[in-house]
Amino acid sequence: MSKRVYFFGKGHTEGSAEDKNLLGGKGANLAEMTSLGIQVPPGFTITTDTCAEYYELGKTMPEGLLNEIQKNLALLERLTEKGFGDEENPLLVSVRSGAAVSMPGMMDTVLNLGLNDKTTEGLAKRSKNRRFAMDAYRRFINMYGNVVLGMTHGDFEHEISSLKKERSIELDTDLTVDDLEELIRRYKAVVLKKTGTSFPSDPIDQLTGAILAVFGSWNNDRAIKYRRINDISGLQGTAVNIQAMVFGNFGDNSGTGVCFSRDASTGENYFYGEYLINAQGEDVVAGIRTPEPLAKLEEVKPQQYKELVAVKKQLEQHYRDMQDIEFTIEEGVLYILQTRNGKRTGQAAVQIAVDMVSEGLISKETAVLRVTSAHLDQLFHPMIDASKRKNFRSVVKGLNASPGAAAGQVVFSAEDAEDWVQQGKKVLLVRNETSPEDIGGMNVAQGILTATGGMTSHAAVVARGMGRPCVAGCRDIRIEDKKLIIGDTIYNEGDYFTIDGNTGEVFVGELPLEEPKVSEELNIVLRWADEYRKKSPRASRPNINVRANADTREQAENARKLGAEGIGLCRTEHMFFSEERILHFRRMIISSSVEERKAALAVLLKYQQKDFEDLFEVMEGFPVTIRLLDPPLHEFLPQDADQIKELANITGVGESDIRATIASLHEMNPMLGHRGCRLGITYPEIYDMQVRAILQAALSVSKKEIPVRPEIMIPLVGTEAELKDLRARAEAIASETLEGNKDIDYVIGTMIEIPRAALTADRIAEHADFFSFGTNDLTQLTYGYSRDDINSFLPEYLEKGILTKDPFQTLDADGVGSLIHIGLKKGRSVKKDLKIGVCGEHGGDADSIEFVYKQGFDYVSCSPLRVPQARLVAGQSVIKDLGAAS
Amino acid sequence: MSKRVYFFGKGHTEGSAEDKNLLGGKGANLAEMTSLGIQVPPGFTITTDTCAEYYELGKTMPEGLLNEIQKNLALLERLTEKGFGDEENPLLVSVRSGAAVSMPGMMDTVLNLGLNDKTTEGLAKRSKNRRFAMDAYRRFINMYGNVVLGMTHGDFEHEISSLKKERSIELDTDLTVDDLEELIRRYKAVVLKKTGTSFPSDPIDQLTGAILAVFGSWNNDRAIKYRRINDISGLQGTAVNIQAMVFGNFGDNSGTGVCFSRDASTGENYFYGEYLINAQGEDVVAGIRTPEPLAKLEEVKPQQYKELVAVKKQLEQHYRDMQDIEFTIEEGVLYILQTRNGKRTGQAAVQIAVDMVSEGLISKETAVLRVTSAHLDQLFHPMIDASKRKNFRSVVKGLNASPGAAAGQVVFSAEDAEDWVQQGKKVLLVRNETSPEDIGGMNVAQGILTATGGMTSHAAVVARGMGRPCVAGCRDIRIEDKKLIIGDTIYNEGDYFTIDGNTGEVFVGELPLEEPKVSEELNIVLRWADEYRKKSPRASRPNINVRANADTREQAENARKLGAEGIGLCRTEHMFFSEERILHFRRMIISSSVEERKAALAVLLKYQQKDFEDLFEVMEGFPVTIRLLDPPLHEFLPQDADQIKELANITGVGESDIRATIASLHEMNPMLGHRGCRLGITYPEIYDMQVRAILQAALSVSKKEIPVRPEIMIPLVGTEAELKDLRARAEAIASETLEGNKDIDYVIGTMIEIPRAALTADRIAEHADFFSFGTNDLTQLTYGYSRDDINSFLPEYLEKGILTKDPFQTLDADGVGSLIHIGLKKGRSVKKDLKIGVCGEHGGDADSIEFVYKQGFDYVSCSPLRVPQARLVAGQSVIKDLGAAS
Repeated sequence: MSKRVYFFGKGHTEGSAEDKNLLGGKGANLAEMTSLGIQVPPGFTITTDTCAEYYELGKTMPEGLLNEIQKNLALLERLTEKGFGDEENPLLVSVRSGAAVSMPGMMDTVLNLGLNDKTTEGLAKRSKNRRFAMDAYRRFINMYGNVVLGMTHGDFEHEISSLKKERSIELDTDLTVDDLEELIRRYKAVVLKKTGTSFPSDPIDQLTGAILAVFGSWNNDRAIKYRRINDISGLQGTAVNIQAMVFGNFGDNSGTGVCFSRDASTGENYFYGEYLINAQGEDVVAGIRTPEPLAKLEEVKPQQYKELVAVKKQLEQHYRDMQDIEFTIEEGVLYILQTRNGKRTGQAAVQIAVDMVSEGLISKETAVLRVTSAHLDQLFHPMIDASKRKNFRSVVKGLNASPGAAAGQVVFSAEDAEDWVQQGKKVLLVRNETSPEDIGGMNVAQGILTATGGMTSHAAVVARGMGRPCVAGCRDIRIEDKKLIIGDTIYNEGDYFTIDGNTGEVFVGELPLEEPKVSEELNIVLRWADEYRKKSPRASRPNINVRANADTREQAENARKLGAEGIGLCRTEHMFFSEERILHFRRMIISSSVEERKAALAVLLKYQQKDFEDLFEVMEGFPVTIRLLDPPLHEFLPQDADQIKELANITGVGESDIRATIASLHEMNPMLGHRGCRLGITYPEIYDMQVRAILQAALSVSKKEIPVRPEIMIPLVGTEAELKDLRARAEAIASETLEGNKDIDYVIGTMIEIPRAALTADRIAEHADFFSFGTNDLTQLTYGYSRDDINSFLPEYLEKGILTKDPFQTLDADGVGSLIHIGLKKGRSVKKDLKIGVCGEHGGDADSIEFVYKQGFDYVSCSPLRVPQARLVAGQSVIKDLGAAS
Repeated sequence: MSKRVYFFGKGHTEGSAEDKNLLGGKGANLAEMTSLGIQVPPGFTITTDTCAEYYELGKTMPEGLLNEIQKNLALLERLTEKGFGDEENPLLVSVRSGAAVSMPGMMDTVLNLGLNDKTTEGLAKRSKNRRFAMDAYRRFINMYGNVVLGMTHGDFEHEISSLKKERSIELDTDLTVDDLEELIRRYKAVVLKKTGTSFPSDPIDQLTGAILAVFGSWNNDRAIKYRRINDISGLQGTAVNIQAMVFGNFGDNSGTGVCFSRDASTGENYFYGEYLINAQGEDVVAGIRTPEPLAKLEEVKPQQYKELVAVKKQLEQHYRDMQDIEFTIEEGVLYILQTRNGKRTGQAAVQIAVDMVSEGLISKETAVLRVTSAHLDQLFHPMIDASKRKNFRSVVKGLNASPGAAAGQVVFSAEDAEDWVQQGKKVLLVRNETSPEDIGGMNVAQGILTATGGMTSHAAVVARGMGRPCVAGCRDIRIEDKKLIIGDTIYNEGDYFTIDGNTGEVFVGELPLEEPKVSEELNIVLRWADEYRKKSPRASRPNINVRANADTREQAENARKLGAEGIGLCRTEHMFFSEERILHFRRMIISSSVEERKAALAVLLKYQQKDFEDLFEVMEGFPVTIRLLDPPLHEFLPQDADQIKELANITGVGESDIRATIASLHEMNPMLGHRGCRLGITYPEIYDMQVRAILQAALSVSKKEIPVRPEIMIPLVGTEAELKDLRARAEAIASETLEGNKDIDYVIGTMIEIPRAALTADRIAEHADFFSFGTNDLTQLTYGYSRDDINSFLPEYLEKGILTKDPFQTLDADGVGSLIHIGLKKGRSVKKDLKIGVCGEHGGDADSIEFVYKQGFDYVSCSPLRVPQARLVAGQSVIKDLGAAS
């Protein structure tokens, strides 16, 4: 039987920071601080192994544990010179949970344990503060009743309310000492009534109960859910920390506070914190009294302040990270109750990482690992001012379709949006759903809010491409006659609203926003990450590149500014949505002969060529992957009668013919329909035109002495024959267009987004120069989920734990990942050097990037604003792979 | 260099029937017959290897081939006592293709080769029939010009028409000898004009040209397409047969004919055939003269008839199969031109197989292999009378959604269908698409024709289940005001139409149908197949079972009659579609609370329990797999205003609320939507009710001393957590319902139809007692095809060879098959004895059954009418596996 209890206290500390798994984060740090000579209230920690044992034994106390606890208690009594249950000088302890990973507030805590009628009298005498002692006792009964005896907080709340009513007082603090004694009697009575037994007066019984309760709280619903949401697994239980109580409320020579070794908001190297004199930790939280800034402590208690600064320095040096420290001063003596690495904003994370490298505290590798993808996310979009956010409550929630916050006056049509913006107003465009005609309005709006549609709806896709915040599929809003109806409330055109594209929340009113700040420090961190991205230990793939998904010159420029090394996905269909082009595209669709279709395509060719020239020029020789037409044709056709009429007028095609075309193109499941390379096979003129436009653009840019690297990508391939056929056709067009010009080094590849393509990748690779995994569609098909419809069950699936994450956000390593693995292995079995990348949402997700890096991908491609995150995470993946952090 | 030419002729035959791959089917049989002593016009065969050589050399004649040919020609001259190019006694030859697998009419043939101006004179003299010689010559020029010189048949047709016009005659036979000589001159002139060179007069030049042309015809478009459609691959080319000509048109002592060693239509052991005196083979085909029945030959030419009967016997004994024989009598001498295994109807195939076993000609194994799945298909549905079919032409074509032919008067509503049938009429129900309300009408109709919808549309699924012929998705019909409009023609209610559900064809008028015949011989063959099904050489899976997909007592009874060993798929949702139930189901959907939903479900429970009791009773202890609710809820809701109003009236729920529910359940891609176990997770009451109904039914039937084996199947599982959750729930219901009754031995399993389920099958198997591969959905998701929409590109994909087969008919072994392989391997890696089956369309398809047998499946399940085919094919698979045929 191994050791179950570890003591910490001057001269007899058994654990250290190394023992996090065994002692939990809190216990390990308490031991570590004690060893460092820092004044920590002594105590002991019951190991996480013991918690596991408790569960293995069917939730009973392991034999011998109590004996070990008692030995440690004796040691604690000697060190504190107090006695557990001693009526003169009672030792009181706190009993707290503490897992290897911090789970704040999820599990249970009992304070002031050891009090009973007699020890309370002793405490009263020793503290010379009877009120303090009685208050501590009644709080203990309440807390213990709640945590250990399974009573509700309301059981006690009811008693205190009655008493206050009887006494005609309002605040707890107005209760007299007699009142508190009466309350203690009533609390004990209610315990007897509800549980059928008296409140335990033996401190050892109390302690045993509390320890078992903390063990039990490891598997309460809250804790299980927290671990699920935060992806915490592989832990065996919680440790239990039993620690001598210290009190900040012994009088004016006592106090308590919280401090950060650097500013958690800006990262500035400035000792920041708050404290209260004559108070306990919970008083700070309760907000009845306003805490003082830490600077003032220097004036009030210069000695203790000096000690605190020294401890702060020592801890930061020791842990080599910014510390979040809790302290208590008991009758002039400074105790450190807890230290942990502090949570920080994105800005602070970057600043602290860079500073600590200059200070020689950490290596560049560690600095890169210290900044998270979520930190960067904050830095590239306007955000609702965090300090003010709590003053507002969202009225309704949709899908977080495109990140960032936006505020403005609501308008209900794209035209109105453009008009209002012309007049100098800021608008939010609110639509049931958007369509290609809305592009102009979407572009001028601050953000977009739609009632229907999912994460791949037109609004969502276009907004992400534009970097415009968007909340989509907000089912609880209704739009009628230029009114926005939410529940029973009707809002008018021009009313101010704010949307948060990061959370999907919608607020009434104009909330204060913070603009994104791209600091020099950030660039430093990203350059460090880049260094590592280029020195992967995997011999055959020495670096992992980051590209952007971009369709326009503006997006491409932005992407390069943010460090993109090429375009991994240009969606050519987006180019057809603008007003002057959609007409020709529609003309092409409704044409009744191949000749008419070709005439319409000839017009589109010119537009496309210009678009591609823009991209090649901006990318200056970086690869540009252009995906040929992907969506089904019906997506381009007009929806309502007016638009049909207009199209009929312009083209001379009869309205009924247009309607017939629309009807004939209708599909039950468009996601599984006639799109992608299926269009390429059945309407070869379209792809012919696009290939010609790509290569003509390449030629024309190349003539300006700008190098070009076009990559032609064929979407939705499911069979070898599709790619073989379309490749042959594209090559024929190429040899016709390039006429032997050897400067244009084009390649032809395919998306791997159909399960069958991954499963037969060896055969497909015969005809492909590269693979780009389209993980959006691959996820849809592997799960059989439609992104447009998934909201009808996804929230409940996450809630019930059927899914732990939205697989469209984070790549499903088990299912989709195994198809990727098969596809990559089979592809490279035929072509060792086959270039392999990923485009789509997962290309910007941290876990997913690490997954594909480990698989051996050559690049990831994501939306321009996510390029910095991708660079960071790719660098981190290599650092972890190298085992290089220090 | 290996031997390229094989001679066949009395005393010097180099090949045999064994050499099919090298000499082609025709060449090998000619050699074989010669060896058997049968009188065959002698000749020689150029090997298929030589054809491959020709292609390898870039379509040129291999060196030395001509030399070898000339040696064989010399041998042929000696044997026939004629000279190739001899002006007195010319040797004429035919040059024919002949691959290892018969490809009738796909490649080229040249007859009468060796004729020129001089040899024709010789032929005229020797035959004493100048007209015959001239006619042969002009036919040769025409054929050679067409096949070898690349001219069109029209080039020659034009000349003969002109001449007939000049001579004012109508029939070719009216042309005089002079006319024919004139025609020969004109034919030669047109050859010179079109090709720029004279018609070759040197017989060796003629022969060389013909051989190269036959080689070339191996890769003509027709031949390539034929091989693709008939799934012929792995062949390297065609052989070329050069054979001395014999003529049946030398006079009244000559003749020609075709005969079958048994009746190809009924299988009766009766020598059946036709002949013509003084005629050539093509005269029989041309249909100008009516051939005489073979019996008459016995009177006219008793000696030759006797010889023919002897040859027939000899050949059938030798080949141990029914023979299709071509013969020619030249001046009293009987020549056999060709023999091959004869094509036969399903009825004949069964009869012949059984007879030949009794006759000791073949083994039972061989008999089972001789009957094909397609043969059986003919026997289980009414068919259009094959002999009369050619007199009708289909007016329009849809999807072959449910097999069999049906004729009747068209009606346009289910109510009308029921009314008309009440009046004793036969009707075809024609609808845009069918809905649950149409069930009654569908049931009384002869067949169903729909304008929209695919192979899994309501009409298609229900019709297949009912065994009702159905043509679905017939896009070129329109229905307006009780009129059926096809092109410009308007048909009225009551007009007769016929549909062929095997081909998708629609005919105007009432075509004669043949009823299916289930003979005792068929049962014998199936019992033999069953014997083999139960003795697979695969130790761990000694037999492969056949079950049926059935939802009702009637279907289940039919299935057992046809030999089903259980139900592999009972689709519980079909039970909700009948009129009195759909209301409760709708009430359940629109209920606003769990309580209301449960109340509606309580009513449905009684119906379901009764349904399941029916199935258990019929199946008497055979396993019954019941799939819990699968389709999305919106499929059950009313479609039009009247129905909504009705539902509102009955339920008291507001119309606008119903509309809101319908709108909220709308999905962009229902195939990928909120259905299957996703409903089970989000509306657990539904599955609870179904599980309870299953087990209560099991209990109640069990009390009647009838054994029951319920298998509860959870559909659309994609994650381990779904199955784990739903299994736990089902088990809880079970223990509540069964109350410890141990007689009910239920199991719980899952469909594997989501790619992710196959990819993570090891984890899913932990919670499954069986897997049933749902290959319909698995194919949809693996390819990313929607069965409802695939018709917009599938025909073109098949046409262009992108797909060689419809993957919904025949399992795609490469893609879907590899997922099945992964799923099975992973599943059995966790549970060695995991029972694995397949349900859905592929369960009745021959290739697919063989595939899953080889994978190690335990059973296949298909629609009741396909059970006999499945039994047959499963037995055949085992026989092939045993290598047992003889």
